[in-house]
Amino acid sequence: MTHALLRGSGPCGMPRQLPADEESLRRGAEILRRGMALVEPELRRVVERLHPSVARVCRYHLGWDTEGDGSRAVVRRTGKRVRAALSLLSVRSVGAPERFAAVAGTAVELVHQLSLLHDDVMDGDTERRGRPAAWAAFGTGAAVLAGDALIVQAVAGLFHAQAPGASAATDALIVAVEKMVHGQAEDLALERRSVREVSASEYADMARGKTGALFGSSAALGAVLADAPPDVARALHTAGSELGVAFQILDDVLGLWGDSSVTGKPVGTDVTRGKKTLPLLLAAGAGTAAGDQLAELLDSGCLTAADIPEAMRLLDATHGRERAEEAAARHVASAAASLDEAVPSPGVQEQWHSLVAHLFRCSR
Amino acid sequence: MTHALLRGSGPCGMPRQLPADEESLRRGAEILRRGMALVEPELRRVVERLHPSVARVCRYHLGWDTEGDGSRAVVRRTGKRVRAALSLLSVRSVGAPERFAAVAGTAVELVHQLSLLHDDVMDGDTERRGRPAAWAAFGTGAAVLAGDALIVQAVAGLFHAQAPGASAATDALIVAVEKMVHGQAEDLALERRSVREVSASEYADMARGKTGALFGSSAALGAVLADAPPDVARALHTAGSELGVAFQILDDVLGLWGDSSVTGKPVGTDVTRGKKTLPLLLAAGAGTAAGDQLAELLDSGCLTAADIPEAMRLLDATHGRERAEEAAARHVASAAASLDEAVPSPGVQEQWHSLVAHLFRCSR
Repeated sequence: MTHALLRGSGPCGMPRQLPADEESLRRGAEILRRGMALVEPELRRVVERLHPSVARVCRYHLGWDTEGDGSRAVVRRTGKRVRAALSLLSVRSVGAPERFAAVAGTAVELVHQLSLLHDDVMDGDTERRGRPAAWAAFGTGAAVLAGDALIVQAVAGLFHAQAPGASAATDALIVAVEKMVHGQAEDLALERRSVREVSASEYADMARGKTGALFGSSAALGAVLADAPPDVARALHTAGSELGVAFQILDDVLGLWGDSSVTGKPVGTDVTRGKKTLPLLLAAGAGTAAGDQLAELLDSGCLTAADIPEAMRLLDATHGRERAEEAAARHVASAAASLDEAVPSPGVQEQWHSLVAHLFRCSR
Repeated sequence: MTHALLRGSGPCGMPRQLPADEESLRRGAEILRRGMALVEPELRRVVERLHPSVARVCRYHLGWDTEGDGSRAVVRRTGKRVRAALSLLSVRSVGAPERFAAVAGTAVELVHQLSLLHDDVMDGDTERRGRPAAWAAFGTGAAVLAGDALIVQAVAGLFHAQAPGASAATDALIVAVEKMVHGQAEDLALERRSVREVSASEYADMARGKTGALFGSSAALGAVLADAPPDVARALHTAGSELGVAFQILDDVLGLWGDSSVTGKPVGTDVTRGKKTLPLLLAAGAGTAAGDQLAELLDSGCLTAADIPEAMRLLDATHGRERAEEAAARHVASAAASLDEAVPSPGVQEQWHSLVAHLFRCSR
């Protein structure tokens, strides 16, 4: 789907400095492919060293092995390895060799895959990318153990990397995982609170942990491995973190208005679970009659699928989607500003902008 | 309970060089207490830095907070922090300061607690130490996330340690967790195989990963932090690993013959689940009529609690317990030989022997 964020100009539009023409989108797709090509062989090497029963779960989860549903693994099922692409541009930003991108990208993708494996268990999400989640296919225990195996491999890969900044990179990844766990805990804690009580800034803090921390690491880690100046690594990290928050917001939007055959998960499960997604928070806090009605509905507890149409009607009446997309655009613009500060080469700046345009334009 | 391993002499008896008199047992208990005193404040510091909802699960799991069952946290509920005691003697073995024991012991205890949190989810064990397991009390997701938080803290603690061997210790812990995950996967994989097909040596390989790897690290890590000679660290690791295998065997024995009010888990669940504990393997492979009958019963699938008395009768008729205890005694003897090689001070050798005597004599 084409994201409203990128349609036209104005407050919901794409920040002016980010090109969104066809050529730029093509370049963004190419960067994603290159990032994937760099990490995929490394991921395979890591997985094949694991216990056979753990490797089997990982192969399925990573989309390499469809385990009996008859179809061949297709690219869509593997995910896009967005974080690997960030690592690639991290390395290009400081003119370091691509092998650092392979190391950094593998580590952040392993952490990301751990988080998907465990989050699906925590959230009780039975589907991922249009087929059963790993825990639903192999059992909760198998998915938990596979996640444990991947987190150790992520840290081990950086720790043993032949790179001047291996130690700093290990430290950065540890911090990222700490923040990610904290953000995930906060996300779950917000589920139990009233939609009226949770502010947009609390949401941003949560998203900065849950999604921003690993995005930030992904954007910085290649530079850190190459021993780049700390202020450059910091600016890249800030950019990645802001992109992560925007990504989380758009994930919220897709969970409400996305095509479930593309997103691979049923629409509205976030609503019935009480998840404090940004469109709901902004709509319920809008101070309009429809917003107040929405807040009342959400706070009534025990929402079922039958309540979704009414919730969606109230969301639309309060422009929940547009408000969330404006917030996402602000985070993207903030990321762009950090990138322009951190990246000396105009060519690499343009690559960043192309990747960002691609990420926020295309279906995920 | 008093363990048969330590009664009398002969093949099932305590290896001659390990004293088991009252004074030695008292000294062993004192070492456990000292190890616990060293790590407990560190563990609390780690837990209190976590997200409040994660900290709450950890406090409950660690036995500090009984969450509404009315009783005060008691020592029995915290576990004994056996691995912290191994770290303490690791440090004493090389004459290093106790603060290294606090760092090493905290790291290995955090990994151990992660493994308990996640293993209870994987095994579906609803009870631990006589009360609901963390996942049963707080939900699967909360227990999974708490485990994730602890593993990161374990690695972070060693990585940031102010010690000459901090980097080597981090590496050693990463390897231990890799092996532990592999052993846990193998343990689960063995459940699906026939009891006739699994050899005692496959069991030992599994136990060396599942339990031995972290025991080995616990016994070596203090010395590694202090930058002790590699051969000393290796011998300590071997000793710890052998103790871990013995510990796992005795855990198997307690799961079958232990007092469930002491072990905190119902008798026989290992049998109905198809777990390949050593007493079952040795009895079913004994080549006697009762052993063959036991193998047939175990391989029939779908065992229920009603089959437990018959399984226990056949186990007793084939001396499953005694065979397993003899195997444990051999691993303890092998550990003792490694310790005598690695530890120069007769006083510290005696402390090791006292701790081992205490561990294998007393209820756990």
